Amino acid sequence: MSSNTDIDNLIELMAKLPGLGPRSARRAVLHLIRKRALLLTPLADAMQQVAATARECLNCGNVGTSDICEICNSEDRATGELCVVEDVADLWAMERAGVFKGRYHVLGGTLSALDGVGPEELRIPRLRDRIEAEGITEVILALSATVDGQTTAHYIADELQGRVRLTSLAQGVPIGGELDYLDDGTITAALRARKEM
Amino acid sequence: MSSNTDIDNLIELMAKLPGLGPRSARRAVLHLIRKRALLLTPLADAMQQVAATARECLNCGNVGTSDICEICNSEDRATGELCVVEDVADLWAMERAGVFKGRYHVLGGTLSALDGVGPEELRIPRLRDRIEAEGITEVILALSATVDGQTTAHYIADELQGRVRLTSLAQGVPIGGELDYLDDGTITAALRARKEM
Ligand SMILES: [Zn+2]
Ligand SMILES: [Zn+2]
Repeated sequence: MSSNTDIDNLIELMAKLPGLGPRSARRAVLHLIRKRALLLTPLADAMQQVAATARECLNCGNVGTSDICEICNSEDRATGELCVVEDVADLWAMERAGVFKGRYHVLGGTLSALDGVGPEELRIPRLRDRIEAEGITEVILALSATVDGQTTAHYIADELQGRVRLTSLAQGVPIGGELDYLDDGTITAALRARKEM
Repeated sequence: MSSNTDIDNLIELMAKLPGLGPRSARRAVLHLIRKRALLLTPLADAMQQVAATARECLNCGNVGTSDICEICNSEDRATGELCVVEDVADLWAMERAGVFKGRYHVLGGTLSALDGVGPEELRIPRLRDRIEAEGITEVILALSATVDGQTTAHYIADELQGRVRLTSLAQGVPIGGELDYLDDGTITAALRARKEM
């Protein structure tokens, strides 16, 4: 390929990113070399910065720069509503929509018998603890409209039945659709039209 | 979005890479944070390394770590054959095919009246100098089978007519196709079946 070990090494690492294959990694690296001052150096610095500071919130699983994230730390977000999402990308999608004022709980995936993912792998025990500790009155299950997503939603609903109001995003989430693909308006509509489970 | 400036900054920079949009940049950054030791830190280091060492070959336009690249420096590659390509990705594609033993000349694009790209923008003057300086006997025009690519090939052929043997990749390059998309076998076949211009 190129006769240069450093560049080959960078291409190989870039190709490990989701959405990039070997060919797009080579294109990206050439682009980076052409835009050294404008893009390559700032990107290297930004990665080093994030590597040094990013951590997972011990309470909710969000990513931030402290052991407890800003949302969990904010008294304004202690509305008694807790929105359960599959991963941090979904939390970010909800925050971009800007309509939800409560806190989140990031499961870190969905239950999957096939992949051997049980409740213990999913931050579900911690969800139970939070209901009491944070005085949660409503749990909004904002999970994907996929088989695994809905299986997970029903499992959690069974677990928490009778202890809190349980709702799910309803109107607007397309069948088989993942939350992170939706536009803000759809997410807003789905939240407003949430229904009892 | 996320409540964290460092992470937002990294997402914004990642979204500037070709092939990544805002959504895939967010996914990539979450992936990087999850794989901090395995991917994020090595990637930051590799970028810093390339930012410090990568440079364009003053002779041919290839990228490497010295002012004159390994191919231009190698006497083994002084075969008298010079392969003219549009960009470094095409040079890498030729090298992967492994069939060409001469040197390269990277134009850095194609002539385009529409975009105001003339011969001076394209390392074409330097190409003329190299014919004499390096005793070039054959120039292989390995340009895209696009309108701009072929316009550029004909411009260069007119310039060099009578001074060297002029050939072009022929068989196997699909109409409208770009070199970097082709498999090694197709490139090999196209080189072997090159025809006089
Ligand atoms: Zn948190
Ligand atoms: Zn060179």
